[in-house]
Amino acid sequence: MTDGFTRIEALPAKAARAEYQIEDVLGRRWSPRAFSARPVGQEKLLRLFEAARWAPSSGNDQLWSFVVATAKNPVEHERLASCLNERNRRWAGRAPVLMLSVARMRFARNGRENRHAFHDLGLAVGNMLAQATAMGLYVHQMAGFDRDAARRKLGIPEEHEPVAAIAIGYPGDLGDLPDDLRKRELAPRERKPVAEFAFSERWGRTMLQDDADHDSGGR
Amino acid sequence: MTDGFTRIEALPAKAARAEYQIEDVLGRRWSPRAFSARPVGQEKLLRLFEAARWAPSSGNDQLWSFVVATAKNPVEHERLASCLNERNRRWAGRAPVLMLSVARMRFARNGRENRHAFHDLGLAVGNMLAQATAMGLYVHQMAGFDRDAARRKLGIPEEHEPVAAIAIGYPGDLGDLPDDLRKRELAPRERKPVAEFAFSERWGRTMLQDDADHDSGGR
Repeated sequence: MTDGFTRIEALPAKAARAEYQIEDVLGRRWSPRAFSARPVGQEKLLRLFEAARWAPSSGNDQLWSFVVATAKNPVEHERLASCLNERNRRWAGRAPVLMLSVARMRFARNGRENRHAFHDLGLAVGNMLAQATAMGLYVHQMAGFDRDAARRKLGIPEEHEPVAAIAIGYPGDLGDLPDDLRKRELAPRERKPVAEFAFSERWGRTMLQDDADHDSGGR
Repeated sequence: MTDGFTRIEALPAKAARAEYQIEDVLGRRWSPRAFSARPVGQEKLLRLFEAARWAPSSGNDQLWSFVVATAKNPVEHERLASCLNERNRRWAGRAPVLMLSVARMRFARNGRENRHAFHDLGLAVGNMLAQATAMGLYVHQMAGFDRDAARRKLGIPEEHEPVAAIAIGYPGDLGDLPDDLRKRELAPRERKPVAEFAFSERWGRTMLQDDADHDSGGR
């Protein structure tokens, strides 16, 4: 499993082990560290942004922005990679596409603080993840980057906040990863059960007692 | 178009007018105010939560929680509806499913502040929106609710933050809406162009100059 020719897309452990049936574009998504050098064309990138574009946002404020650098321009790609912390840089620096997601923290129309800025950026990125999965692309977001460096190097204005660094590309070879990361790449994806976070009517009340209650629609 | 039998799902103005092709479960999504009284079965709700479950999160912290109340139990449904502000309550109170989305603001494993809590909840809700759209359900999130009331009435613990109220259901009749809301329901969805929020290499630089640059994959 760890030779240089094992493609991460072939790893059965990485499909979501869903208790209830979900869409393929949601279940197939995961966050790899091994990316192929294969370039991602601009039209694909535009489709990712188009997906983000149609997310909902509080007051339709559309507070999200993205700065993208591809390996086609190595100097600019390296500029973005240089904002990552060392731990992320050793794998994400190889991804052909790097992005920074950015949130405007006040509403455009009235300058008031937008409590949901990070949340709504997350909705937009959620759309982007589903679109990427549908196109065979994988996305790995990172909290570990230097916000001040990103702001300075990419010219992010003061009223906007750098939120996450994002690596995007096609699946790569496990053999390209250092040993410790290769092990993590092979580990199954873990999630707590639905019963631990979805509550009926009051916090802490499980909703699983009532599973014979179907509606009249198809599945 | 405004008789009592016009179903909102039949409104052509509501499909995303996408510049670049995106997945159907993303383009068909919008946030209606007219919901049918048709119940949403528990299995469907569980599939929504399952979709949320497989979202990525910083440190795989899975900080999201949801409290759900359905019209099947009118007392509990009304308890959640009573947290909405008046403007939202007059339409969202009719949705058969109401939820509160909730974020844990510190990492479970070390108690440190999680800067990405709202963002990652947004990712989980983004998954839920795509799953809902695939199942013919519509979702409308609201910032306009009383956080303190929600915390008290639903028993949200101190270390968790109520984030958004959520109405879910099947499409309803336009005729059920008050006149002012009916007009809004018929308006086309508006988004700014990709060029205004997706930048190449530096803030403010458009990425649309280079559109002949495709990768080798299918579309």
